[in-house]
Amino acid sequence: MEPVWWDGDAVGYIDQRRLPGSLVRARAATVDEVVEAIRTLAVRGAPAIGVFAAYGVAVARRTAGGDDEFRAAVARIGAARPTAVNLRWAMDRLSGVEAGAELAEALAIHEEQRDVDRRIAEHGATLLPEGAAVMTYCNTGPLATGAGGTALGVIIEAARLGKKPRAIVPETRPLLQGARLTTFELAGAGVPATLIADGAVAWTMRTLGVRCAIVGADRIARNGDTANKIGTLAVAIAAAHHRIPFYVAAPRSTIDFSLSSGERIPIEERDPDEVRRFGGVATAPDGTPVYNPAFDVTPSCLIAGIVTEFGVCRPPYDESIGDLETRPSKLLAELAKR
Amino acid sequence: MEPVWWDGDAVGYIDQRRLPGSLVRARAATVDEVVEAIRTLAVRGAPAIGVFAAYGVAVARRTAGGDDEFRAAVARIGAARPTAVNLRWAMDRLSGVEAGAELAEALAIHEEQRDVDRRIAEHGATLLPEGAAVMTYCNTGPLATGAGGTALGVIIEAARLGKKPRAIVPETRPLLQGARLTTFELAGAGVPATLIADGAVAWTMRTLGVRCAIVGADRIARNGDTANKIGTLAVAIAAAHHRIPFYVAAPRSTIDFSLSSGERIPIEERDPDEVRRFGGVATAPDGTPVYNPAFDVTPSCLIAGIVTEFGVCRPPYDESIGDLETRPSKLLAELAKR
Repeated sequence: MEPVWWDGDAVGYIDQRRLPGSLVRARAATVDEVVEAIRTLAVRGAPAIGVFAAYGVAVARRTAGGDDEFRAAVARIGAARPTAVNLRWAMDRLSGVEAGAELAEALAIHEEQRDVDRRIAEHGATLLPEGAAVMTYCNTGPLATGAGGTALGVIIEAARLGKKPRAIVPETRPLLQGARLTTFELAGAGVPATLIADGAVAWTMRTLGVRCAIVGADRIARNGDTANKIGTLAVAIAAAHHRIPFYVAAPRSTIDFSLSSGERIPIEERDPDEVRRFGGVATAPDGTPVYNPAFDVTPSCLIAGIVTEFGVCRPPYDESIGDLETRPSKLLAELAKR
Repeated sequence: MEPVWWDGDAVGYIDQRRLPGSLVRARAATVDEVVEAIRTLAVRGAPAIGVFAAYGVAVARRTAGGDDEFRAAVARIGAARPTAVNLRWAMDRLSGVEAGAELAEALAIHEEQRDVDRRIAEHGATLLPEGAAVMTYCNTGPLATGAGGTALGVIIEAARLGKKPRAIVPETRPLLQGARLTTFELAGAGVPATLIADGAVAWTMRTLGVRCAIVGADRIARNGDTANKIGTLAVAIAAAHHRIPFYVAAPRSTIDFSLSSGERIPIEERDPDEVRRFGGVATAPDGTPVYNPAFDVTPSCLIAGIVTEFGVCRPPYDESIGDLETRPSKLLAELAKR
């Protein structure tokens, strides 16, 4: 089950809003449909957005009347969501290729994502203790990357290696990516998973003997500060309180080398009705004011390690992440040798 | 709007499961109905359960065929929920009165609750800074006590005194007491309130400049360890991380002087479908394993003060709470003088 694929003349995707109730395959054949799928979280997860948007640029090239219209379309796709840096990274990369080569580049990005996810899973799996309860957050599986997944890919790889992890999955309000998507993907992978309310994160670490936490990322600053789904900071703080290591797993493309710290990461605020309603049912009085940030920023002092396709970065992150900035050419050279 | 009242020959109550959509008044005229209302959280909040259960004993006296049936009924009411110590406290107190005097004792307990809540509100309001964002959790207003409320009563009293608090209200999954009840009560009291997802607790403390947190309690041990709605521990840990004082407000009847610490507080586990479903809609695949504790225990080292009707207990709690054990007779003497 691939969550994103090229469909001949459109980009195909699994509509994640309908999971786990229905497995609906859809296609975006116009730029409007590409932008709408990203904006409404039909496609979500920072790396999956990058892959999907790259295919979206191929759609734009096929449907645009000319270069001006094409450039405007690419700008619209790049602005569909503000926090995930992978989206901007994919747009930058696509902008550098010659007209007509967009699809080939998108297919290359997707193939690289598969390779990157495999490497993240292998490096990350070494961090998980045998037979441990491992807390994750939100959804970071194949649905989130369009390939093998990041943090969830690590847990699935640890299971494949016989380490018998048991996943603890907070539901992740308001949009319930943990309840809807992570439990669905873990069941498919045969990994035992226990669903909890988000408020139960701290207590569960203690009562179910959680040994480590591993989450994904939407943007990582040079110093290791990490933007991820709202609620991640609470997991990190509770892990520190209980002296449990808290890890981030994300591709290098998630790192924004232009940001010295997390202070300046833009945080998307979403529709109040995501919190005020639930499946069409009002959960609070009409008009109740809501604060609904989609992400929070976990300071790097709470992060024990950041797993990328190049290995595990450890503090001090200014050094270990700085070192990563020079690495991609090395990986490409290595890949070329295989 | 009283949430619990004596209705001639039954105990009347507002069905809190239907709020805020519908304001439904119901009555429990049999012991079965009393137990069911407590068990299903139609009546909830530790002090309100105590008041309601006291009236329930009056119902039991009227409907029981004899003393054996009456005692069995009282035992069933006392076992309707395991964590709230007020329920046990009310049953103990009712057991000590002579046959036929149960209703008078229940009315006295209710009147005392009103007085206790007034005093908690007055003592607690001194702790809140002027114009501050104050985080609370779950619901601790009049609906939760059958009188003025505990933590929410403190915030409402601070507003009445012109301190202009702004309440930050986590929705409190799985049963959404924050979204459904606290926002409803604060709107009624004219106190500005902002609803957030539970996962946003830590990030909101930082971004909205929260200055303190105040919550209720379902049971407090002698050393100050406090059982309260699942998610409270996460608020306390996040408050400690952000150096924000975290307070508990609860009547003395919430303190279990027989417990030296929170280790032995029984924690109710509730139906997995509370987490797996939402308003009748599945949010996770069928059969997903769930861990659904109704409460957690916040260690006293994270608590800056415990507000009771006698004032604010400060650490070390072994001393300040120990001192409370001898106090009730003093309060009763004082009340008698008025």
